[in-house]
Amino acid sequence: MRVGVLGIGKTPHKIQHSKSLRDLIVEAGRGAIADAGVSPSDIEMLYVGNVGSVGFNYENSTGLMAAHHLGVVPAGAVRVEAACGTGAWALHLGVVAIASGLYDTVMVVGAEKMNDLATVEATSIIAQAADSKEEYFSGLTFPSGVALTARKYMQIYGLTEEDLAHTAVKNHHYGARNPFAHLRFECTVEEVMKSAKVADPLKLYEVCPMTDAGSALILCREEILRDQPDKPQVYITASQMATGTWYAATDTLEDAYRLFNEPAKRAYAMAGVTADDIDVAEIYNSFSIQEPLGIEGLGFAEPGEGWKGAKDGSTWKDGKVAVNLSGGLLCKGHPLGATGATQAVDIIEQLRGTAPEGIQAQDPEIGITACRGGPGAVGAIHIYQRLEGE
Amino acid sequence: MRVGVLGIGKTPHKIQHSKSLRDLIVEAGRGAIADAGVSPSDIEMLYVGNVGSVGFNYENSTGLMAAHHLGVVPAGAVRVEAACGTGAWALHLGVVAIASGLYDTVMVVGAEKMNDLATVEATSIIAQAADSKEEYFSGLTFPSGVALTARKYMQIYGLTEEDLAHTAVKNHHYGARNPFAHLRFECTVEEVMKSAKVADPLKLYEVCPMTDAGSALILCREEILRDQPDKPQVYITASQMATGTWYAATDTLEDAYRLFNEPAKRAYAMAGVTADDIDVAEIYNSFSIQEPLGIEGLGFAEPGEGWKGAKDGSTWKDGKVAVNLSGGLLCKGHPLGATGATQAVDIIEQLRGTAPEGIQAQDPEIGITACRGGPGAVGAIHIYQRLEGE
Repeated sequence: MRVGVLGIGKTPHKIQHSKSLRDLIVEAGRGAIADAGVSPSDIEMLYVGNVGSVGFNYENSTGLMAAHHLGVVPAGAVRVEAACGTGAWALHLGVVAIASGLYDTVMVVGAEKMNDLATVEATSIIAQAADSKEEYFSGLTFPSGVALTARKYMQIYGLTEEDLAHTAVKNHHYGARNPFAHLRFECTVEEVMKSAKVADPLKLYEVCPMTDAGSALILCREEILRDQPDKPQVYITASQMATGTWYAATDTLEDAYRLFNEPAKRAYAMAGVTADDIDVAEIYNSFSIQEPLGIEGLGFAEPGEGWKGAKDGSTWKDGKVAVNLSGGLLCKGHPLGATGATQAVDIIEQLRGTAPEGIQAQDPEIGITACRGGPGAVGAIHIYQRLEGE
Repeated sequence: MRVGVLGIGKTPHKIQHSKSLRDLIVEAGRGAIADAGVSPSDIEMLYVGNVGSVGFNYENSTGLMAAHHLGVVPAGAVRVEAACGTGAWALHLGVVAIASGLYDTVMVVGAEKMNDLATVEATSIIAQAADSKEEYFSGLTFPSGVALTARKYMQIYGLTEEDLAHTAVKNHHYGARNPFAHLRFECTVEEVMKSAKVADPLKLYEVCPMTDAGSALILCREEILRDQPDKPQVYITASQMATGTWYAATDTLEDAYRLFNEPAKRAYAMAGVTADDIDVAEIYNSFSIQEPLGIEGLGFAEPGEGWKGAKDGSTWKDGKVAVNLSGGLLCKGHPLGATGATQAVDIIEQLRGTAPEGIQAQDPEIGITACRGGPGAVGAIHIYQRLEGE
């Protein structure tokens, strides 16, 4: 399967009080349309990833609203939601639509406007992405649930908090160089250690901020992109989804691996590549611990070894596989519905060679994105390849 | 394109205070799994249509929750939302997934639990499906917007309120015979006329109730159903979507026709049938006026003539095309995310010959569903055919 990436667009990732959800969708979407060089009337389907507009912005029907404001009527338009895996799910639906042969050109948007409310209200809305009927009432929020996972990982594999802090250091090193990132400062292990405890053992510099952003992609049949050899020849060659545990309380480390490991195996087979072939990866890390878990789930390291690359350099820009050169969610923030789409846009920029100075890897050819959501309820893997002159 | 319908399930459509959203999903879903004779582990993808769980039930991630409670982990699972077209969109995504060749067996669920809140709160949540930032603040709710359309239609085509009332009479005639319907009473034109005005000229018996329900389908590759000749050989042979006007205030009658007319043309071409071939139809009618508009949009009658069939019998059970033998939304109610899926289940029962006594058409072979949503923002057309012994 080869699905052409005709265009990409994204907004800055930051707090944007002066922009509404529709503004973010339009900014990202028009960027992708311009980059693709298509007319809005060429777009046959529109998949909009958005998690919380009803709670955050008092509006529903985000897909229909987006179609109207982007001027892509009469494309079919829909909103999709799968907790923090939402943007990746929108991308998956776009890929499947093209793969079906039923559509030539479709659009994928991910967007979230989280900063319309007080933080405490927004946090309550985020918590609805887990089990609001049982676990949330027991006080098990996302930070506390993930902190339990971090504690478990550290105990099983004998890590110190300093060991884990290297992941935050690496992300902030690159986030500081990404003009689209929300948090743009470098930090040392000592500074990570001194930052405020959010949920023991996770500290402030190991936790993503609350961010407003949108990202968009225009996808097309392989032949359409082939016929435009002047455009960057980047194709999505695999898209695989999975579900895992819904209850955070019963989530084990094995569940966390399986969430990526199982769809990643399918994705590698689909694309005809192996974990060793991957040059650049964007791995979900709303909390630092999720990055080593993802590195291990994707097969880049053995269980318990995924944190080491941030310390020894092998997951830095010139290492064996460059992980989260965007700064990851720790620095870009995690605008829920946008995240999966932004990961895709960031990897595509890497393969095109158009990533910002200081975070562009050297001539990468194969990239991967791994998005997750819910307690451990969504795994989403996409593989991207630059395939020139075939 | 032929997508097999392996199983169907639905809950009663009524106020269900003793059941939660997850109960409705599980009841409908397990019904479809049992009917299909598959194991939950056979299901590769789960598309859940739900509009308002965040507002109605204080929970999000309905797709992930459904996967967990239905035991279809590790299928990929997602929630989809497109206002009142939500259930039809979930169905469309299931159809495209099978058509892509990437999946063998997928599940589609539509569900809504609307009666957890006071009616005034629920109405406010429903209104978010239109433009909550501009029109809703101006007081243009769905009943008032559709009443304007009804008034326009009556003025242009010279109808009386009595003329339009026949549509409610027909729906209630069949709704009274459908044990799954919410409102089960017959009424006369006089009784419709005497029922309370909701939004002039629409009266209470011309408006759907607020209903809790779920519906589900298991879809599969054509060959899988072909290999089970003892199962009813019903296939989905077309699935086409469109968007139309987002603002109710600028919605014209032409827009209302186009919303169905344009995707219906594509759907007829896709299935290789014409409007004349259709035996049974389920047409969205949360308000009575939408049924004649749909009849005209689908090409069953000329513009301005769609209301006549309810009076002269041609859209009754033994007429030229039987419309809304389920009682339509007027009697089944309109559990937002469920509706599009319920329409599909009702038509499939007709083609299987298993509809309840009194509403089963005589040996129908080809059916259609037409769902809409938003002010005039979603059109969704599906065609179903019984194809024995091919």
